[in-house]
Amino acid sequence: MSLKEQDSCGCEGHAPPSVLEDDYIPSIVSQLAEGFTSKKWSSHIEPVPIPSKEEVVDLVLQAQRIMFPGYFSSTMLNPSSLEYHLGYNLTIFLRNLSRQLSSAIRHDCFRHNQPCSNCNARSHELAGRFIRGLPAIREALESDIQATLDGDPAARNADEVIFSYPGFFAVFVYRLAHALFTLGIPVLPRILSEYAYHRTAIDIHPGADIGESFFIDHGAGVVVGQTCVIGDRVRLYQGVTLGALSLPKGAGKKLRDIKRHPTIEDDVIIYANATILGGDTVVGARSIVGGNVWLTKSIGPDTKVLLKQPELVYIGKNE
Amino acid sequence: MSLKEQDSCGCEGHAPPSVLEDDYIPSIVSQLAEGFTSKKWSSHIEPVPIPSKEEVVDLVLQAQRIMFPGYFSSTMLNPSSLEYHLGYNLTIFLRNLSRQLSSAIRHDCFRHNQPCSNCNARSHELAGRFIRGLPAIREALESDIQATLDGDPAARNADEVIFSYPGFFAVFVYRLAHALFTLGIPVLPRILSEYAYHRTAIDIHPGADIGESFFIDHGAGVVVGQTCVIGDRVRLYQGVTLGALSLPKGAGKKLRDIKRHPTIEDDVIIYANATILGGDTVVGARSIVGGNVWLTKSIGPDTKVLLKQPELVYIGKNE
Amino acid sequence: MSLKEQDSCGCEGHAPPSVLEDDYIPSIVSQLAEGFTSKKWSSHIEPVPIPSKEEVVDLVLQAQRIMFPGYFSSTMLNPSSLEYHLGYNLTIFLRNLSRQLSSAIRHDCFRHNQPCSNCNARSHELAGRFIRGLPAIREALESDIQATLDGDPAARNADEVIFSYPGFFAVFVYRLAHALFTLGIPVLPRILSEYAYHRTAIDIHPGADIGESFFIDHGAGVVVGQTCVIGDRVRLYQGVTLGALSLPKGAGKKLRDIKRHPTIEDDVIIYANATILGGDTVVGARSIVGGNVWLTKSIGPDTKVLLKQPELVYIGKNE
Repeated sequence: MSLKEQDSCGCEGHAPPSVLEDDYIPSIVSQLAEGFTSKKWSSHIEPVPIPSKEEVVDLVLQAQRIMFPGYFSSTMLNPSSLEYHLGYNLTIFLRNLSRQLSSAIRHDCFRHNQPCSNCNARSHELAGRFIRGLPAIREALESDIQATLDGDPAARNADEVIFSYPGFFAVFVYRLAHALFTLGIPVLPRILSEYAYHRTAIDIHPGADIGESFFIDHGAGVVVGQTCVIGDRVRLYQGVTLGALSLPKGAGKKLRDIKRHPTIEDDVIIYANATILGGDTVVGARSIVGGNVWLTKSIGPDTKVLLKQPELVYIGKNE
Repeated sequence: MSLKEQDSCGCEGHAPPSVLEDDYIPSIVSQLAEGFTSKKWSSHIEPVPIPSKEEVVDLVLQAQRIMFPGYFSSTMLNPSSLEYHLGYNLTIFLRNLSRQLSSAIRHDCFRHNQPCSNCNARSHELAGRFIRGLPAIREALESDIQATLDGDPAARNADEVIFSYPGFFAVFVYRLAHALFTLGIPVLPRILSEYAYHRTAIDIHPGADIGESFFIDHGAGVVVGQTCVIGDRVRLYQGVTLGALSLPKGAGKKLRDIKRHPTIEDDVIIYANATILGGDTVVGARSIVGGNVWLTKSIGPDTKVLLKQPELVYIGKNE
Repeated sequence: MSLKEQDSCGCEGHAPPSVLEDDYIPSIVSQLAEGFTSKKWSSHIEPVPIPSKEEVVDLVLQAQRIMFPGYFSSTMLNPSSLEYHLGYNLTIFLRNLSRQLSSAIRHDCFRHNQPCSNCNARSHELAGRFIRGLPAIREALESDIQATLDGDPAARNADEVIFSYPGFFAVFVYRLAHALFTLGIPVLPRILSEYAYHRTAIDIHPGADIGESFFIDHGAGVVVGQTCVIGDRVRLYQGVTLGALSLPKGAGKKLRDIKRHPTIEDDVIIYANATILGGDTVVGARSIVGGNVWLTKSIGPDTKVLLKQPELVYIGKNE
């Protein structure tokens, strides 16, 4: 913006900012630098690379091109060009994934003061194992698309599901993140799940174990904790929490890796804003949990649990 | 990143990744290609274009420049330059909208095995009808801005509402998407509503029918279903669901296009996390629905319905 | 896309769109222009600049580079390059912040018909005061990181918190926005809080007053109102509302700047979807508010308040 434009605002006068006023910058820099180098504050001032959040997020778009050919790229595909498209995108994906894996692993070794050897080769091998799992992930995603079409009267066709269902997007990213989590990759799975959360307000921890034909409708506020086990053909609505029982202060380290989130068996439906808590809590197969229900103990199979309609108070001329 | 930098991490050795390890790529490509070409998995490997999600989302930014001149572009406007600004942006918008409409319509014809004729001319005509509706949409948006200023003590002026109210953004995109939905355009309305959801965690189906002066405060978790009918001057708070009653498995096709979401008459206020379900449920004019209320039957006009305060249990030295 | 590609869709014929069909554009432009210039509709057609939403949002990324060195930039840092990194980024940040502050202040003067003098110098001075506050903000953020690690068993290390905890991101942006709010800057704080909301579905008003070691877990749907006062070491879960009591229509202007949101003292934990309302409502130190509790009156310190487990109805063969 030119100075002239600025002057057209009718202000009485624009004193140019005094250069001397910036002389506090070096002191602020020192204060900040001191906090970081003295390790008072967390930072990553280290000679090893750290994953790039931006590039990890790009992997999601690349994976969309591979898993849903024709939807997320401008080139039109036909059966004869399909293998080129897949091969090209898979090669790029492999290279980028290897690089991020390598950063993640090396940074993790460094953080734990472990010497790491052959990180690049190891990353490449892990990336390969991930890629070999893609057909199985695609199979599961197809079952998720079908579950969405079966479960939502407003879903017209697979296009709409792939393009615009937040629940499906969250499950797509979860299936990628879970595969990385299972391979023992640090940091990357959480960056992926945060990205899905950012896009959908659905928070599925990559450690959760979820079966086929999974459908989350609407989805804002859904929380699926790290040690959840969820069977096949399960349907969740917005605001459902599958969480841990109340945690004491300082629970952080003590409870890590202990099963503290519920088990949901096959064919369960859980309606909006229901909360199910605790590692020993099981919802049996084909059961239905009503909206707003708060559950901290198991229910058997083929059961419907509803909130006893709380009393409503009417004021005014209700007819 | 140079190799030298990588080597500075203190690792014991970086074996270069073996090229041979990539030899699984062709087999994965074949497996994926087989899944897509055999139609086992959803894909868009077709000789017709499909809308570009990116460009549809760009339409929203272009529409912001037209509907809120001066806010979302870097050029400063004055009354004499305004018509140029509007004319220029409207022309771009028309061209881009036509192109996306054409892709959407042709893809839809192809999917239904219908020959389509004059798709380009038809798209252009529909885009024209959409654009002729913009002044009326702008009128409604002004009423929404005013409703926000009236309803939220924290809203200081129209700038804040236009720049930073998630509820207003969701309603803005809804009004565009609803106009497209009403014209019978496939896919695009859902891409728009998904984008609004991504930005706001508010899920308004483009099919819903919403009056003037609509205000959603905060808004995360709000769900407004496809067949809702909402009057003028209605206010919703975060977490409100206007949804369908419980759906059996396989409900997908059967219930499409049947009214299954509630009717909210003029001047109703619905507080946070209330849930109102069912196609026959009506909330009468000027009524108030309290926070957390769960409602599956109608209430008349001028009525206040509150949750009977559920009993609280106090443990410890409450004073 | 070439015409040839379009023709391959199998359509019966693509009549080129008639140019004449666009002749409604001038009339739509006039209608829109009339609405804006007659002040019927809100617009910013003024000779003074308005903050750029895009550049304000960029400030967040720049602040991340300063506050979390090594995490959000591709250059690797070591202790000797750190001061250069900080000094460089701080200088850029200062310049950009000054420019946005100047736009915000001048636009505000213009809106209130006040002549403003020395806006540039004033903006520069305010930017300086903001920057001098950064070390204290960084100190508070470190306490928030530690609170996250203490409170969430799934949080493995500071990397995960900084990279991928939505609650931490929302608190980070809040601490920046609150500092601007405290300096009396118009518009910018709300643009920042909207951006945080867009990313996290967590809505913290920049006016709220929040102590150290603040941790929001998951977070979708959390609302913290403008006049909240929150002590140190407080923990909130998803869906918690700290809001105002019901507002009459037209409350907008009347209630501005009156304390209408609750006070939460030190060491309080508030579980998922609890709602606490009202400016006189105080939750005493070390108290615990259970999930789904709805609270409109104060509770003392060291108290646990739980929802009396609402009766559940079981249908079917629960065992």
